[in-house]
Amino acid sequence: MITYSHQTAPTQYVQANGIRFAYRRFGETGGVPLVFNMHFMGTMDHWDPAVTDGLAKRREIILFDNAGVSSSSGDVPRSVAEMGANAIAFMKALGLRQVDVLGFSIGGLVAQEITLQAPDLVRRLVLVGTGPRSGESMDTGTPEGKQIFGATYGHPDDLWLRVHFTPSEVSQAAGHKFLQRIRFRTEDRDPAVTEQAALAQRTAIAEWGAKREHAWDYLKEIKQPTLVVNGSDDVIVYTINSYILQQNLPNAQLIIYPDSAHGSLYQYPELFVGHVSMFLSAANPWAP
Amino acid sequence: MITYSHQTAPTQYVQANGIRFAYRRFGETGGVPLVFNMHFMGTMDHWDPAVTDGLAKRREIILFDNAGVSSSSGDVPRSVAEMGANAIAFMKALGLRQVDVLGFSIGGLVAQEITLQAPDLVRRLVLVGTGPRSGESMDTGTPEGKQIFGATYGHPDDLWLRVHFTPSEVSQAAGHKFLQRIRFRTEDRDPAVTEQAALAQRTAIAEWGAKREHAWDYLKEIKQPTLVVNGSDDVIVYTINSYILQQNLPNAQLIIYPDSAHGSLYQYPELFVGHVSMFLSAANPWAP
Repeated sequence: MITYSHQTAPTQYVQANGIRFAYRRFGETGGVPLVFNMHFMGTMDHWDPAVTDGLAKRREIILFDNAGVSSSSGDVPRSVAEMGANAIAFMKALGLRQVDVLGFSIGGLVAQEITLQAPDLVRRLVLVGTGPRSGESMDTGTPEGKQIFGATYGHPDDLWLRVHFTPSEVSQAAGHKFLQRIRFRTEDRDPAVTEQAALAQRTAIAEWGAKREHAWDYLKEIKQPTLVVNGSDDVIVYTINSYILQQNLPNAQLIIYPDSAHGSLYQYPELFVGHVSMFLSAANPWAP
Repeated sequence: MITYSHQTAPTQYVQANGIRFAYRRFGETGGVPLVFNMHFMGTMDHWDPAVTDGLAKRREIILFDNAGVSSSSGDVPRSVAEMGANAIAFMKALGLRQVDVLGFSIGGLVAQEITLQAPDLVRRLVLVGTGPRSGESMDTGTPEGKQIFGATYGHPDDLWLRVHFTPSEVSQAAGHKFLQRIRFRTEDRDPAVTEQAALAQRTAIAEWGAKREHAWDYLKEIKQPTLVVNGSDDVIVYTINSYILQQNLPNAQLIIYPDSAHGSLYQYPELFVGHVSMFLSAANPWAP
């Protein structure tokens, strides 16, 4: 049997909900797989191999493009709830009966929806750089985020230096290493997300973020052990939203890393892999 | 050479600053020792052996009573700054040149003062259930704290079930196990803290907590890698104070545990030992 890695796993396809989902699987099989849900404008190639291969040593990793994103067919829905339903259809089409779910940014919103809609499917949850419904500045987006996504860059990848890393020298140096790592894979890469797909994602985020009464009550329904992670200075989804998630989820641990932004998992891949492994590997995540 | 543990380490004494300091040392020698700074009204016997012996597998542990507390002579000073100066005198009297410092509650205030006054002595810092100068409700104390410390209890130890644990069944069960663990040591125990000592500690806490302009600027001077830990529902030193510490310290990681209170380290001793070991053992705490 061939053992694949982040770099070598072929893009495969599965049909569900009228959508042809693109995905990649690699890592240690036999346990509960960990399904990754990507951020705004991201494809499978935006995941950091230091994170995915690091975690793949002890568990199976599944990356996928949700409906309308990159190599997957269909349209990006205009609500996070529909994105969650599509993700569930994808996982069921693969025959998965229990998964751990990791969601980053908008992927963290989708991860929450997956858990609400299919609680029996999800064993544990990892939420990175994300927030609750009606979280702080999640309706309009942050002013910093608008500036960062609205600017033009020498190379399209340079956008991510500002999205995922702080302006500090150390953080920017980590960012340049991250950009190298996501370019290691040279064949069978995912195409960029279309403008139309990005606009639909924006619409879904705004709807999720809209101010509501008792906005955070729904978090009480997410009973799965949850690890919430963020950088100290996330200006895309403000860091306080991670604190709000922890305070309102009934069974969540929060980790905030120093001098880091939206992409804290890419700045500290070894530390992140260590914390996530500790959380996912123990029979009881709070008593390893 | 005899290998001591939390249960067997004899109480020893060292003279410094005109005070006879009581202390206990045990664990793996040869590296940077970890010096524990205790909470309000606590003695060396209030540390959880599951935490201290857990950490002692990979490093030397030093417990001590600060001036005027339990087995140590002298008076409890009425300021945290003086407590810090006494702790530094104690460590220097032991001939220590570099230490890691763990501080819990008022011990976390002392740990900050130690680091500010003797930055070259301190390699890394672990702050548990504590807060910054002028932190939220740290001047007057919290209403919950006043109620809890003002009530009477069947057994004096029962106070700690309410201080350190949430009202949930799971947390209270963990609390009862903690109370058993701190009674395992039957000989050479520390006497209870006097009322006079407790009053002086209260005075020092109120002075530390008093509202000031630019109260959190001083945290920028603590450049040591710092791990900030608390429970989700600390009603003695509100959990938000741990978030404030992380946001204002230049090089700090925050961990908040689920369904837990002031004594989160006692509720999840294995998890806490795992996180602290990961933080203290790596050459670079953020790239283990």
